[in-house]
Amino acid sequence: MEILPYSREVYYYETDRMDIVHHSNYIRWLEEARIHLLGQLGISFPEIEKRGLLIPVLSAECQYKFPLRYGDRFEIHCRIESFNGCRFSLSYRIYNKSAEKLSGIGNSSHCFTDVNLKPVRIKKDYPDVFEAFEKASESGQD
Amino acid sequence: MEILPYSREVYYYETDRMDIVHHSNYIRWLEEARIHLLGQLGISFPEIEKRGLLIPVLSAECQYKFPLRYGDRFEIHCRIESFNGCRFSLSYRIYNKSAEKLSGIGNSSHCFTDVNLKPVRIKKDYPDVFEAFEKASESGQD
Amino acid sequence: MEILPYSREVYYYETDRMDIVHHSNYIRWLEEARIHLLGQLGISFPEIEKRGLLIPVLSAECQYKFPLRYGDRFEIHCRIESFNGCRFSLSYRIYNKSAEKLSGIGNSSHCFTDVNLKPVRIKKDYPDVFEAFEKASESGQD
Amino acid sequence: MEILPYSREVYYYETDRMDIVHHSNYIRWLEEARIHLLGQLGISFPEIEKRGLLIPVLSAECQYKFPLRYGDRFEIHCRIESFNGCRFSLSYRIYNKSAEKLSGIGNSSHCFTDVNLKPVRIKKDYPDVFEAFEKASESGQD
Repeated sequence: MEILPYSREVYYYETDRMDIVHHSNYIRWLEEARIHLLGQLGISFPEIEKRGLLIPVLSAECQYKFPLRYGDRFEIHCRIESFNGCRFSLSYRIYNKSAEKLSGIGNSSHCFTDVNLKPVRIKKDYPDVFEAFEKASESGQD
Repeated sequence: MEILPYSREVYYYETDRMDIVHHSNYIRWLEEARIHLLGQLGISFPEIEKRGLLIPVLSAECQYKFPLRYGDRFEIHCRIESFNGCRFSLSYRIYNKSAEKLSGIGNSSHCFTDVNLKPVRIKKDYPDVFEAFEKASESGQD
Repeated sequence: MEILPYSREVYYYETDRMDIVHHSNYIRWLEEARIHLLGQLGISFPEIEKRGLLIPVLSAECQYKFPLRYGDRFEIHCRIESFNGCRFSLSYRIYNKSAEKLSGIGNSSHCFTDVNLKPVRIKKDYPDVFEAFEKASESGQD
Repeated sequence: MEILPYSREVYYYETDRMDIVHHSNYIRWLEEARIHLLGQLGISFPEIEKRGLLIPVLSAECQYKFPLRYGDRFEIHCRIESFNGCRFSLSYRIYNKSAEKLSGIGNSSHCFTDVNLKPVRIKKDYPDVFEAFEKASESGQD
């Protein structure tokens, strides 16, 4: 199965007075790319949240390599690095497509909870989500 | 009763590549100033939401008169313009304290709902909130 | 010439604890839609800014009619309402495509300046931009 | 010299539909706390940027330990971990003051550049800034 990278142009309001994208937006883009990836793997965020499953962020980080400016298009390649039924982690490579440069490298880790942020055993309660993650983390996507 | 204006400095991430505060942040500042005002009037937003009363935004607008830049301090003078038990509106004057200029003029209107966004008659269900608004809208604060 | 509306899905980080899109994001979406419209009219924001022409916001407003939630797709129909060589205004209709409802109605007004925010006579200095606006404001687009 | 932690309340628009602060805002708060710390050390961000010195972010990360909700106050303890004349790094501890819990742990690293993002030797060009960083990184503040 081919996984498509996530891509869009920088929004004006994402820039700061340094004339580059403010670094905090990369963290938001990781979320956009993550949800785009999971959607392609058959895991619809809006749908699983309707079913009462939340996926909070345990950690997020980004290294900034080359700036993105207004008018630039970015592309994010995202992959699941680990999954153990309780937690999973992803890695991200953010490219400046206009400059054809690597703009940033990101990582995030997550767990599964109910709406009260109490941990959930998805193998038992959401077997379809468990299987999708299993399959995704086996097959090196991207 | 003396009402204190809302004031703080511009955050770096609130600027854009034009080297001024991005206009969308003024709309967020109106919310900061509104909650600050209501708090002084004895209406604690966190508390009334815990009690199941939401105050969604029906409209928001801002005219931009003079830019705010990084390092500037702004001050917002906010007052309740109308209240009829179901809806209320506020007006805002945003000052650039560093340049001693009027930076913007804003307005917002709001209603009262339950957590499902269904309208609520606060006179009956939240008499203390009703009275606080009554008192606030009579006495021209600010 | 057919003008395409601007459309995308709501991002997770655009929601608030009311479980709807925070109203301030609509003001950012107006900017996304505005730049998308001007692009279709042959006015590339990134390009004209490279040429030293800025288009600051003089006013922005939105009426909120029906909420947008996470997982919803919105579509914005945007048109130039007026243009006099110095200023222009736009109107926006934001639709919740998932609920097939009108979600909001917006307006914004703008002027033309140099990088120091000093007014610019685009007819003289940017005749191509002037003509594009002339043409766009004559032909009722949208 | 006593360094005061950075503290404020959560803004409504910083929450998301999970009813907690969206994780990306912590990255913005690190910037607020960083600038607050440097200000206390005699390094005024607005002033050094006026002098042409920029301090871009090389990396930023946060581990999320305990949520912050609307109505909560946070407090950030920030310290310079390293400084070598070209780069520096900071560590952050974000506390939920309302719950009296550690909410997050952050790190960021930075370099010094001119307005074109070209590296700058601050020892030569900004000796006062160099000395302030020297002094701050020696004396374990916080």
